[in-house]
Amino acid sequence: MSNGNWGRWGADDERGALNLLTPDVVKAAAGAVSSGRIYSLGVPIQREGVPLMDYRGTPMRLTLQDSTDDGIYDMYGAKKGTGAHEDVLVMASHTTSHMDALVHVYDDYQHYNGVAHDTMHALGGAQQLGIEKVGAFAARAVLLDMVKYFGDDEWVEYGRNITGDDLAGAASAAGVEVRAGDVVLVRTGYLQGWYDAHQKGAEHQFAQAGIGIDAAQWLADRDVVAVGSDNAAVECIPFDGDDFLAVHKVLLVRHGIYMLEFLDLAAAAADGVTEGLLAVCPLKVTGATGSPINPVLIA
Amino acid sequence: MSNGNWGRWGADDERGALNLLTPDVVKAAAGAVSSGRIYSLGVPIQREGVPLMDYRGTPMRLTLQDSTDDGIYDMYGAKKGTGAHEDVLVMASHTTSHMDALVHVYDDYQHYNGVAHDTMHALGGAQQLGIEKVGAFAARAVLLDMVKYFGDDEWVEYGRNITGDDLAGAASAAGVEVRAGDVVLVRTGYLQGWYDAHQKGAEHQFAQAGIGIDAAQWLADRDVVAVGSDNAAVECIPFDGDDFLAVHKVLLVRHGIYMLEFLDLAAAAADGVTEGLLAVCPLKVTGATGSPINPVLIA
Amino acid sequence: MSNGNWGRWGADDERGALNLLTPDVVKAAAGAVSSGRIYSLGVPIQREGVPLMDYRGTPMRLTLQDSTDDGIYDMYGAKKGTGAHEDVLVMASHTTSHMDALVHVYDDYQHYNGVAHDTMHALGGAQQLGIEKVGAFAARAVLLDMVKYFGDDEWVEYGRNITGDDLAGAASAAGVEVRAGDVVLVRTGYLQGWYDAHQKGAEHQFAQAGIGIDAAQWLADRDVVAVGSDNAAVECIPFDGDDFLAVHKVLLVRHGIYMLEFLDLAAAAADGVTEGLLAVCPLKVTGATGSPINPVLIA
Amino acid sequence: MSNGNWGRWGADDERGALNLLTPDVVKAAAGAVSSGRIYSLGVPIQREGVPLMDYRGTPMRLTLQDSTDDGIYDMYGAKKGTGAHEDVLVMASHTTSHMDALVHVYDDYQHYNGVAHDTMHALGGAQQLGIEKVGAFAARAVLLDMVKYFGDDEWVEYGRNITGDDLAGAASAAGVEVRAGDVVLVRTGYLQGWYDAHQKGAEHQFAQAGIGIDAAQWLADRDVVAVGSDNAAVECIPFDGDDFLAVHKVLLVRHGIYMLEFLDLAAAAADGVTEGLLAVCPLKVTGATGSPINPVLIA
Repeated sequence: MSNGNWGRWGADDERGALNLLTPDVVKAAAGAVSSGRIYSLGVPIQREGVPLMDYRGTPMRLTLQDSTDDGIYDMYGAKKGTGAHEDVLVMASHTTSHMDALVHVYDDYQHYNGVAHDTMHALGGAQQLGIEKVGAFAARAVLLDMVKYFGDDEWVEYGRNITGDDLAGAASAAGVEVRAGDVVLVRTGYLQGWYDAHQKGAEHQFAQAGIGIDAAQWLADRDVVAVGSDNAAVECIPFDGDDFLAVHKVLLVRHGIYMLEFLDLAAAAADGVTEGLLAVCPLKVTGATGSPINPVLIA
Repeated sequence: MSNGNWGRWGADDERGALNLLTPDVVKAAAGAVSSGRIYSLGVPIQREGVPLMDYRGTPMRLTLQDSTDDGIYDMYGAKKGTGAHEDVLVMASHTTSHMDALVHVYDDYQHYNGVAHDTMHALGGAQQLGIEKVGAFAARAVLLDMVKYFGDDEWVEYGRNITGDDLAGAASAAGVEVRAGDVVLVRTGYLQGWYDAHQKGAEHQFAQAGIGIDAAQWLADRDVVAVGSDNAAVECIPFDGDDFLAVHKVLLVRHGIYMLEFLDLAAAAADGVTEGLLAVCPLKVTGATGSPINPVLIA
Repeated sequence: MSNGNWGRWGADDERGALNLLTPDVVKAAAGAVSSGRIYSLGVPIQREGVPLMDYRGTPMRLTLQDSTDDGIYDMYGAKKGTGAHEDVLVMASHTTSHMDALVHVYDDYQHYNGVAHDTMHALGGAQQLGIEKVGAFAARAVLLDMVKYFGDDEWVEYGRNITGDDLAGAASAAGVEVRAGDVVLVRTGYLQGWYDAHQKGAEHQFAQAGIGIDAAQWLADRDVVAVGSDNAAVECIPFDGDDFLAVHKVLLVRHGIYMLEFLDLAAAAADGVTEGLLAVCPLKVTGATGSPINPVLIA
Repeated sequence: MSNGNWGRWGADDERGALNLLTPDVVKAAAGAVSSGRIYSLGVPIQREGVPLMDYRGTPMRLTLQDSTDDGIYDMYGAKKGTGAHEDVLVMASHTTSHMDALVHVYDDYQHYNGVAHDTMHALGGAQQLGIEKVGAFAARAVLLDMVKYFGDDEWVEYGRNITGDDLAGAASAAGVEVRAGDVVLVRTGYLQGWYDAHQKGAEHQFAQAGIGIDAAQWLADRDVVAVGSDNAAVECIPFDGDDFLAVHKVLLVRHGIYMLEFLDLAAAAADGVTEGLLAVCPLKVTGATGSPINPVLIA
């Protein structure tokens, strides 16, 4: 496999495709705001009723202080009836809607830019490519509603491998162009399928529609910054070519293109949004492999 | 104390001043982008070296899986050398840079809009006014660098009560206007003082410069959506009028105006930024009293 | 309902039936050791494959440091090849095998000895009756194998309400006497049923055999210190008299008698153990409502 | 360094010196109970006021449910006024009083019995030698009060390297014999020194009195099962021979002898206890490197 963007922004680069977001590109992205409508793309973080994976444990909001602690601020002269509530959060960095750091996946024991896979330390965290290198960013977003494009009812058939031609077709049909520096949001309807199955008490499908290697390469050729989707892994499952995490290898590892998973794109798609300004604000956790996110799309 | 905005957006409203962010206001806010430069305002989340409060516990990034787990994906047909790193995060919802939900503080046993303080349940979380009601938002931001305005060296004198006149003066001097729907970012330099003391191994000051009741009322009168600062509580400590959380009561409780704490405003201030588009993306944790944030300012 | 042991050991007592464990009683208990065989009664604490309750979250052992951190002790002069592994544990205090503190359950808004139910604070923890008041203890244990006594195959019929006469009969059949200061271990086989269902991928039964109010009173009349069982709540479910936590009210609330849940009694029962010395060592977590335990039975 | 007990109990043995605890040895140990007095040796687990190490994070007891959740059992038919309190615990496995599993420390990249150091997996935990292999145990304990023996005031001089002769002398002076299968408890007074410094707001000493290599070998020669102390690491700091974890290497790695750290031995020592039956009940956390403990000493 070609090494895509390795070395393109320097041998020590840790930000990958985010380098494409020059001030000019960001300024132009702000021009994608047309109506001022806002969409919060995060799936709720809660113990149940949202897609979770067992090995990541139960996300927990635990109360740190509540009204039972009334009086603890007396020592600071607090007036009677004054108080505060707080929580502690316990959750995987890859809980529901999240962003993968470049240190998340490795292929042939290497991450983006040839960083060795053992750069991740248990106590020390990621020595390179951690989520804190991202900062927070804003970019033009293009929303491709594949459910609509394929003429499916509520979601794209589970397991379907979405191709570059499919993305090109959907963009063309929507009258929107994918440009360098964009975030491409690919809606498959998987999330709606998940909620539907959950409501019916049915088994959740592990198989999911998503982009395959061809589409990943198509996106990389267009110099996108990130790819987001409303499914678990952006890519189709079963994996393209039966290669576990095949699309992560093309995007994250070879090109330094970020991946945003389990975004809720339904409301924006229902409103016919095709482009906008997207702000993505991962928590700046030093050494982390990703972060839960709740991006805002300004259409 | 007057009840400010209680009832203004309906007896059942749970979003407070976010109601001011109509599409037209957001669209206009996008016009505040001039250069396209981006600032990530989050302070890192890590075990030490950043301002933390003991009772909130140590924020921890704990490795969920790393290279020592090599081979666990064999069952999925992963090729040799393919793997993934993940973490679990344990942190207070009010860790380093964070946003207060309207359920955070109560006064006279009531939150914004008259919601009773026992709406916060230990297991159930906030029954009303939780952070998930915020979604994510974008607004015009005005940055008032009080260090520069007061002519201080690196930080405003600890404990100084910043007034409405001070804010008006700083805005005027910077040639920027505070409008309805804005987020006002008040830089005090406290964070730089903290880092300075930390580096020297000195005691951290609990006293901090911040806005007082007068400035809070001034901001509420201008219908701002949120107030952010680079200190622990937005407000000055010792508290104005020796009333514990006095400014929280004016802003959060009486007016439903959000508070963003421990934002790192130094880089933007150093570049002379005075306005921009700010995106704030709190984690959508159901029932939480706040969220760590890493807002992006697009200047 | 009578208030049982309230006031018996003083109006301020926080240890309940543990007061029965005078040195003489403990010394006599040591005489119950006959063979020197040891049984560890704790069910493993792990993410799956053991009985867990969803609302308590996934118990997690998270690696704090492992071999990927090699070299972090260089600063202390560690020789090459020297290192340490550590973990962080996240688990409910009532995970798998656990002991209830007297502050765990309340009835009529009161705990043992009339302590008000709001003695439990979110931040501050239990102001009274917390698990740290227990310390650690050792007592004579009597093991009543109800599966054997009832002539059941592997477990007592789900939902069966075990009575005082049943316990008396089982003790008599086993040739063992229940004395003041004892811990009575009641084996129902529920745990084996759980493992059996788990292995088969079958639904777990919520209904469970356990003691009812009559047996609880029988035990209280004999001044036992604690009652342990191999099910989720010691008591039968559906609850006796359809009164939620009916047996907890008799034992824990009215008599200050401790409850030990989800103990693995199978190995000791298989060996025909009927008495021994039992040591119970709950973690001394200040203000906690209980603790995971792994008691040792010395037969 | 000789490999001590490697291979002694089989090439696949994972329990080390616990193999010495045959039923006969345990039965004899029960004979060490003389008065029936009980000592809980665990230091409290709480956020502050006890010796903690920063990198292990703040131990947290977080309330899972309290009186603010009143009514959540209505669906189960709970009577008004009936409820339960629960917590979630977040703590290092090596918090305050704890037991090291054999997988804790490695030397020359090997653990006890030649197990490779990468047997510890981030997600999978210890593949061998984890704390769950211990179960729970009881053994005769000998308490050697080195403060008394050395004639020190409240604690042994910080940094003092306690030798085998010192232990022999203390045992002789106390009229107690160290036998195969014993747990030896070495009191240095460090914990009292810690509390004293804490109360005064003074700096805590990192240097500590503890056993050195000579004493470790002396103990190994006597086939003890475990060594406990009232300091952070059983061994003296600075480390004997400037070899980081020198005593851990002798005891844990070479001999499979367990180490119990930060035990509170003051009360037992004050009562002049020199022997007893000790029960140690580590949590049975699958794959963990250790466990918090609260052993009970029955004198």
